[in-house]
Amino acid sequence: MDERGALALLEAELEPVGDDAAVVDELVVTTDMLHDRTDFPAGTTRYTAGWRSVGASLSDVAAMGAEATAAVAAYAAPAFDDGELLSFVRGAREVCAAVDAEYVGGDLDEHQEFTVATTAIGRVGPETDPVHRTGARPGDRVCVTGQLGRSAAGLESFERASDTAQAGDEETAARLRERGNDLFRFTPRIAAGRALAPHATAMMDSSDGLARSLHQLAEASGCGFAIDGERVPIDEAVFEFADEDDALALATTFGEDFELVATVPETELEAVRDAVDVPVTEIGTVLEADEGITMDGEPLADEGYTHG
Amino acid sequence: MDERGALALLEAELEPVGDDAAVVDELVVTTDMLHDRTDFPAGTTRYTAGWRSVGASLSDVAAMGAEATAAVAAYAAPAFDDGELLSFVRGAREVCAAVDAEYVGGDLDEHQEFTVATTAIGRVGPETDPVHRTGARPGDRVCVTGQLGRSAAGLESFERASDTAQAGDEETAARLRERGNDLFRFTPRIAAGRALAPHATAMMDSSDGLARSLHQLAEASGCGFAIDGERVPIDEAVFEFADEDDALALATTFGEDFELVATVPETELEAVRDAVDVPVTEIGTVLEADEGITMDGEPLADEGYTHG
Repeated sequence: MDERGALALLEAELEPVGDDAAVVDELVVTTDMLHDRTDFPAGTTRYTAGWRSVGASLSDVAAMGAEATAAVAAYAAPAFDDGELLSFVRGAREVCAAVDAEYVGGDLDEHQEFTVATTAIGRVGPETDPVHRTGARPGDRVCVTGQLGRSAAGLESFERASDTAQAGDEETAARLRERGNDLFRFTPRIAAGRALAPHATAMMDSSDGLARSLHQLAEASGCGFAIDGERVPIDEAVFEFADEDDALALATTFGEDFELVATVPETELEAVRDAVDVPVTEIGTVLEADEGITMDGEPLADEGYTHG
Repeated sequence: MDERGALALLEAELEPVGDDAAVVDELVVTTDMLHDRTDFPAGTTRYTAGWRSVGASLSDVAAMGAEATAAVAAYAAPAFDDGELLSFVRGAREVCAAVDAEYVGGDLDEHQEFTVATTAIGRVGPETDPVHRTGARPGDRVCVTGQLGRSAAGLESFERASDTAQAGDEETAARLRERGNDLFRFTPRIAAGRALAPHATAMMDSSDGLARSLHQLAEASGCGFAIDGERVPIDEAVFEFADEDDALALATTFGEDFELVATVPETELEAVRDAVDVPVTEIGTVLEADEGITMDGEPLADEGYTHG
């Protein structure tokens, strides 16, 4: 059984449809485990790892339209280097501070591979209901916050840094690593999620990539989507590494971007743009389920980032 | 830097004195990471692993005197066997149900070693304040819930099961493994913690062993302790594997027992015994810091379970 199969099994067992986070009373709770081999490419600083791993959980809180309350992280490594550990904690604290949450520490574990498990907690209600993946209705507009492809560009920076370092150009490698780290840190869309919540009919984050997010929203809401590829907002960093066609593919399927994908009734679009503190781009329309999921008229495959 | 040094560094960095769980607004949050090599001896079922790992986090909530709200777990393994995964989830759900908390799922991760990261969330206030480690005052009585040594006996069962299986007696081995699993599951002391909270001046759980818990309480409260070894409540299972002296040593230093160690003013002892749903044993007295930490008049070393 692969991870997606296992997740499907768990969802069936655990009843609630797989939202980005669970809701219990008025709390929103989400947990993630990340590790060296798949999530932190060579060159990722512990500061970025702390920021990014805690940020990934905060992004799930954002996707529920909740405010962020607190986050914790369990940090596992073969040895505890105090500089690395403090850098990690600094990254974790700063990403929490960026969204008015409190980083309240965690656990340490000796482990062969650098591994981080993060949990974020948010609050909804009594005035704000959580936004689920289930409410998209035909005719709603599909919106995405910010730009996509940032993490794809970050990974490419790290890979080029490794190549450049091997070729002996450490100065360029250092610059590329710094760029990779900059691209790998992001502001979780807590404020945007809260502003979207009163208007959105369905929402999730783009951590698995836009294409996979749309497939998941479609399955949860029982709908289809028509996306206009030209409108997909692509981070300019992607064009440093890819031509236009590749850039759209990366922005659509690479994932790990932690933007919000939301469906919004057309009549609410203006209110959304006024309320949200980052660009909100309208990229398509919700269709009936039997109309499928298309981009520029072609079927959009369920391809994306499978978290390992 | 070893794990205790790293934890000390983190505590210094994160300001609040190291309680069992962090308190933010009226929420109590705690996270733990456990893994195969050190935490789940051969023979531990995934059902027990789910129960025990989530239970360990719930125990930290109990130690704050909080009610338990929810728990999540990130489950990492080299492969996802559906029977194992469902057993794990069943264990996690059942330990939550035992303390009126909700198990709200988690994350899956591919990982060489079976690893579990759990987070539990509880609530305190507005009527109940959290109980910290800092309030023990000379003259208070030292109390412990339940019996100690259960996990030591569990580990011994698992080790004997391995030996017996190697010697070819699979029937006895199976019985010993079942006994180990029974001993490894425990009811987190949420109800006891809530009942103790209005009376206790300081509290923590015994997961690092009674001796180490007393050292930690002493450091946080600036006090000493005199413990009466004869009064230390030892689980009868320990005597299946150890004579009386060894049993006291195991009960005092092995740890992983998830009972509560609390300090209570003498005038409140009767109220505590009436309120708490499990046996509460008075095992000693809080002293001034310069009187040290002793058991039966001898210094009690800071020995215990160092979580790996």
